[in-house]
Amino acid sequence: MSSHSEQSAVTVLGLGPMGRALAGAFLNAGLRTTVWNRTPGRERELVERGAIAATSAEEAVAASPLTVVCVVNYDASDAVLRRDAVTAALKGRTVVNLTADTPDRARDTAAWAAAHGVHYLDGAIMTPTTTIGTPAAVLIHSGPEELYQEHRPVLDALGGTHTHLGEDIGRAAAYDIALLDIFWTAMAGYAHALAVAKAEGISARELAPFAKGIGAILPPIFEETAEGVDNGDYSGDDNPITSAASSMAHIIHTSEAHGIDAGVMRAAEGLARRVIGLGHGTDGFLRAAEVLGRR
Amino acid sequence: MSSHSEQSAVTVLGLGPMGRALAGAFLNAGLRTTVWNRTPGRERELVERGAIAATSAEEAVAASPLTVVCVVNYDASDAVLRRDAVTAALKGRTVVNLTADTPDRARDTAAWAAAHGVHYLDGAIMTPTTTIGTPAAVLIHSGPEELYQEHRPVLDALGGTHTHLGEDIGRAAAYDIALLDIFWTAMAGYAHALAVAKAEGISARELAPFAKGIGAILPPIFEETAEGVDNGDYSGDDNPITSAASSMAHIIHTSEAHGIDAGVMRAAEGLARRVIGLGHGTDGFLRAAEVLGRR
Repeated sequence: MSSHSEQSAVTVLGLGPMGRALAGAFLNAGLRTTVWNRTPGRERELVERGAIAATSAEEAVAASPLTVVCVVNYDASDAVLRRDAVTAALKGRTVVNLTADTPDRARDTAAWAAAHGVHYLDGAIMTPTTTIGTPAAVLIHSGPEELYQEHRPVLDALGGTHTHLGEDIGRAAAYDIALLDIFWTAMAGYAHALAVAKAEGISARELAPFAKGIGAILPPIFEETAEGVDNGDYSGDDNPITSAASSMAHIIHTSEAHGIDAGVMRAAEGLARRVIGLGHGTDGFLRAAEVLGRR
Repeated sequence: MSSHSEQSAVTVLGLGPMGRALAGAFLNAGLRTTVWNRTPGRERELVERGAIAATSAEEAVAASPLTVVCVVNYDASDAVLRRDAVTAALKGRTVVNLTADTPDRARDTAAWAAAHGVHYLDGAIMTPTTTIGTPAAVLIHSGPEELYQEHRPVLDALGGTHTHLGEDIGRAAAYDIALLDIFWTAMAGYAHALAVAKAEGISARELAPFAKGIGAILPPIFEETAEGVDNGDYSGDDNPITSAASSMAHIIHTSEAHGIDAGVMRAAEGLARRVIGLGHGTDGFLRAAEVLGRR
């Protein structure tokens, strides 16, 4: 086997929807792709497309210099990687763990990898399965820069934008956590808004064009406020946090008048009231970030 | 005074940042603009630009067939409008109340208006002060269609997109509540994400390009999910609510490990767990909207 074909082999552990999308993109890029999943059966379509189905995880990781892991969480990836046979087979090879979990777990896995001669990169996928292999995919990585550059040609088969965030192995997971925090909190707000709207006789389709409009003002706010946040400038300008708290109270009142639990907004309002109580009522809402971070 | 110039006069009550922006747009459109604010002094710049400063609210409303009100909430607008002298001066005239509050308060004010021979429209401004008078302004209105059409030429001076949502006077406030629910919940998520990121050594500016990317996927989600929500189709596809709950747990763990309160996310996770506990674990996250709305 030539050095090039050796370099162009990749193993995918975990064949959930995202793992299958990753393996499919590697196959589409012409890479020799070995796949394995704890529960058999999920590899069928990939094998029809040319993937090699390993009969064990150790066989799978031995087939390629690079193993990409994408399972439900680090409990699951530990259960696969930290079996002696798999750990032994990984020695001198590289693992890129695209499993989502906390920065702590990524750091713990890096320590395990270092202790066992396994090269380790951590990463996170920020876009849905359907984006994998397309320009819309967004992946972030952290860990040794040189290792990242070595495997970048294979990772590029996943398409889209890859960013190496730094050598701290926990950095990709930390970004992932922060970004999912934005995403799932916003989705909780959207779900609640849909319930309140329905109680007021407004369908999701009626609300949608306006919801889109509200959603569209968030990205520029994220961009425009970043410098102020970094510099500790939380100017309320024309939109003090007292005004946000007043809106929140209206939302809670309307929700609860319809018998709709407003727990998420009650927590958000509590945060705003805490900020106001600390004397920051004329600041903008993002003073909450600084107050949350106080030790 | 000709009928045209009579039609082209407008009064603005409330000269906070938004009220001043409204009055400024009317002035820019060449309308005879009378202004009043409970606390004097805020009219100065507007008067320099040609506004007429009324010495009382009753004098202000008597100066124009249409009065636009924009104060902090309906307690404040009631305090102005429901004084006998003002109510008497408003008889046969029209009030457009752009003050943000709950649908109930809009309905209550409409009942008061009907009892006193005052024509009443309710509305909400969905975009910041800086958009007023520009194509970016978004205003929603509810109440009698004919009355809305009668005053539309004056309201159009505020620029942007105006939508009449229906005859139910509470409808604009209900949309406003639902949209602010999305907005402020998302902002609470953003503030929390900034705090967690900072604790992980990630600055707001470093997070910003990725936060923008996450923000940008929300509007299409709002659009694409609306039909399913209306039809009771909460298919989890490749993204079941169990997966969301798992992400939420990671966020809470990372946040609290840094000593950062995770109350908003804890409430959101509690909602997700409630949905899962009701047997909807394979559904998508928006099943939460249906569960919240159950009586």
